[in-house]
Amino acid sequence: MISICILGSGNVAQQLVSAFEKADNIQLVQVFSRKQNAISTLSKSVSIIQDYNQLEPVDLIIIVVSDDAIVNVSEQIPFQNKLVVHTSGSVSMESLSDANRKGVFYPLQTLSKTKEINFMEVPLCIEAETNSDLKLLHQVASAISNNVYEIDSNQRKSLHIAAVFVNNFANHLFQIGKEICIKQGVSFEILKPLIFETANKINTLSPKDAQTGPAKRNDTTTINKHLDFLSNPNHKEIYKILTKSIIDNGKL
Amino acid sequence: MISICILGSGNVAQQLVSAFEKADNIQLVQVFSRKQNAISTLSKSVSIIQDYNQLEPVDLIIIVVSDDAIVNVSEQIPFQNKLVVHTSGSVSMESLSDANRKGVFYPLQTLSKTKEINFMEVPLCIEAETNSDLKLLHQVASAISNNVYEIDSNQRKSLHIAAVFVNNFANHLFQIGKEICIKQGVSFEILKPLIFETANKINTLSPKDAQTGPAKRNDTTTINKHLDFLSNPNHKEIYKILTKSIIDNGKL
Repeated sequence: MISICILGSGNVAQQLVSAFEKADNIQLVQVFSRKQNAISTLSKSVSIIQDYNQLEPVDLIIIVVSDDAIVNVSEQIPFQNKLVVHTSGSVSMESLSDANRKGVFYPLQTLSKTKEINFMEVPLCIEAETNSDLKLLHQVASAISNNVYEIDSNQRKSLHIAAVFVNNFANHLFQIGKEICIKQGVSFEILKPLIFETANKINTLSPKDAQTGPAKRNDTTTINKHLDFLSNPNHKEIYKILTKSIIDNGKL
Repeated sequence: MISICILGSGNVAQQLVSAFEKADNIQLVQVFSRKQNAISTLSKSVSIIQDYNQLEPVDLIIIVVSDDAIVNVSEQIPFQNKLVVHTSGSVSMESLSDANRKGVFYPLQTLSKTKEINFMEVPLCIEAETNSDLKLLHQVASAISNNVYEIDSNQRKSLHIAAVFVNNFANHLFQIGKEICIKQGVSFEILKPLIFETANKINTLSPKDAQTGPAKRNDTTTINKHLDFLSNPNHKEIYKILTKSIIDNGKL
């Protein structure tokens, strides 16, 4: 049995709590949360604490707070030589307080409080300073996910930036698509099957092989018609640079 | 029974042929194809023709060729006052030859020859000059799809541009994500669950509510770190303009 405390109560903390509560061989002991009722699904065996001095000396302390609060929270932990990890894609492992052993436990997924997710499918990227700590993180990660990867800090930085492109930016393109439809009185519903298929295609084709459209064909007539049509200056610039990038890519 | 000829043998033609061959109350009579074996799934009751003079006077002729060939093909049809439609998102209905009745039959989906698709889920956008032709197109479309929409040429133009953003451009972002991963020796497999979830989220959240990431938080520290990391100038420009657009959107 591996004992765990979670420090934090946001979207990611909430999803981790749910996952650990269902897991075998994991005992979630405490959750640190400023708000008493922040974690809705908590069972009675887990206590909510609001003072770092109440922290119990568990096997693993997971800091699940916003990036800029991680260092400060790590310095509040009243122990020495315990394993302390954060869950961020963009904060280095080294920046954690030197008082304790360091590690990273990064779920590469977009986690909302409201949308329940099958955590077993979430890729978990782990990193630690020693092999024995890495082994412990592997045990914990495998208890809640089928996709565990050992990823060093440099690789994690790349992954985080790649995730900004495929998640944050792709989602913004969906929003632009919605805005263009609505402006002409067309329901966004019509676009949804296309969005799902765009994502599903990467199961069977590489994105490069799946590429279609006027930029891929270097069809300047259509490209210019589209640019004339777009009135929002940001949308126009996005159309231009993505078209250029697809064309440049075709030349490689 | 509605009789149909299809002129063309590319990806979209192939998928339409498969869909019509399975449909009730539709008789696919002929497919015009320069290559005798271009349509792999064709049953024996459908003949392949290579001369427009062999065309039979069916109820509906569907032109499924590249955008710049549509007008020319419509002028080769040796009939008067037949219903002739094209399947393009970006060509106007009016540009078809005046010799016949005009219409549009636009499947809003990314169709590959190699990846079989459930056509019943593909949104079909139809347009015609008269109510009776629209009714006929509705019957034909409903025989192969559960998602039939009456869309005029202006709305279709918007939809086509929106489709470029949510499909062509989103797919290119997936490719950029893959390139960033591979450069650091990280498998693209790690990103796939995130890509699927990014698309699935729009089932339950609007893209605006689903938006997360450094741009949404206006987290300039992380944004600048990411820009420093990106070496490909196109990737850097794409990162900048999409970040700007997300920030501007947050102010609305």
